[in-house]
Amino acid sequence: MEVKHHLLNFKNMVIYQNTDYFTMSLDSLLLANFVTINLRDKMIIDLATGNAPIPLLLSKRTKAKIYGIEIQEEIYNLAKKSVKENKLDDQITLLLENVKNVDSIFKSDFFDIITCNPPYFKVNTNSNLNKNKVKTIARHEIELDLDSILKISKKLLKTGGKLAIVHRPERLTEILEKFRYYNIEPKKIRFVYPKLGKDSNIMLVEGIKNGQSGIKIMQPLIIYDDNNNYTDEVKKMFGE
Amino acid sequence: MEVKHHLLNFKNMVIYQNTDYFTMSLDSLLLANFVTINLRDKMIIDLATGNAPIPLLLSKRTKAKIYGIEIQEEIYNLAKKSVKENKLDDQITLLLENVKNVDSIFKSDFFDIITCNPPYFKVNTNSNLNKNKVKTIARHEIELDLDSILKISKKLLKTGGKLAIVHRPERLTEILEKFRYYNIEPKKIRFVYPKLGKDSNIMLVEGIKNGQSGIKIMQPLIIYDDNNNYTDEVKKMFGE
Repeated sequence: MEVKHHLLNFKNMVIYQNTDYFTMSLDSLLLANFVTINLRDKMIIDLATGNAPIPLLLSKRTKAKIYGIEIQEEIYNLAKKSVKENKLDDQITLLLENVKNVDSIFKSDFFDIITCNPPYFKVNTNSNLNKNKVKTIARHEIELDLDSILKISKKLLKTGGKLAIVHRPERLTEILEKFRYYNIEPKKIRFVYPKLGKDSNIMLVEGIKNGQSGIKIMQPLIIYDDNNNYTDEVKKMFGE
Repeated sequence: MEVKHHLLNFKNMVIYQNTDYFTMSLDSLLLANFVTINLRDKMIIDLATGNAPIPLLLSKRTKAKIYGIEIQEEIYNLAKKSVKENKLDDQITLLLENVKNVDSIFKSDFFDIITCNPPYFKVNTNSNLNKNKVKTIARHEIELDLDSILKISKKLLKTGGKLAIVHRPERLTEILEKFRYYNIEPKKIRFVYPKLGKDSNIMLVEGIKNGQSGIKIMQPLIIYDDNNNYTDEVKKMFGE
């Protein structure tokens, strides 16, 4: 399989991608902008980091130490290359590891922030799995499902620490239930709409470990205007 | 207490109100527009109907039989007056009753649709309860809380029947959990925003008894435009 490395200039950043797998998604960009980061936050981890768009983007927002976990070696190698090229080795550390085993590496109550752009789709007998194995693992809950993400997050987060994920709105009920089941209280949601007048197709959810109940539904985030151009808010995220 | 009857012309409809208690709320209007009504739906009940804005408005959308339940006699009498004035006695039947006892009146699995604009606020020792008792009962979970609404709805709804409520977004997690706990699967939500660029302050939720999981987050509903006028969608709801 021919590997094509694409350079994507983004806020003067270089991200190596492989179009045989996937290119940097809007979802990762939205999540990296959505997650709450305070000055006191010192330790961040991105689960299922892929080619590390989230750690790379977060490095523009914080001086905190950022870890990225990826299980697939080809993608992990791309991510390493980007981190090196951007001279971020001191801030970003990548680990080739299954997310489920991360608690064997880090102590409990260690992280201030966890981010995750997880596989969206449940696996069942009707699943139309991608023939490309790398893509399949990134998109379907084969190696990593919601319960695993929440379970490990509950362990790794400090009390008051935040978990921020991007996911599909059709799974809202299940996601809020699971957050709460694992003592990560949902605190803010932003629904993303392709256009004003359309149903939401992406959502951003942030919860706080052992937080109090009560959630904020933030202003809608609209991606395209009536002329099919990015809205000003999205343009700004892209650094335009 | 002086009773002032106000006539509000709305789509040629007369609604008696008492401004000592409250006037017809935008919430009821939004809910009456939001709930899914199919031609085959024959039996509807509105819990905690107040001065019956929802039954009155729904009569413009359906020929189904509509019941309204209200526990407070003064409000119930106002509602009766409106129903009579609009010559809707054949379609709308009002009952002076506690919602919790409705299952002693109607058979199980009887209704196609249940609507409810319930008291929004939890009662605790810090609650700033209205001195006006009628208002207090309408706004705080004294006579009627979420669990009671869901419990009675589970009993009264047919399989496939719908429960639609209006509530505050800050209680989203709890509301979705309770819907599911009582086997009423949340199927669609519409978040209402005072303006584009503001957090949501009202939400509309519809669930289906014994429905399959999977929820739709509908397009945002914006109340005011940048000039503080109602948006076209809201104007249309008001019959303008």
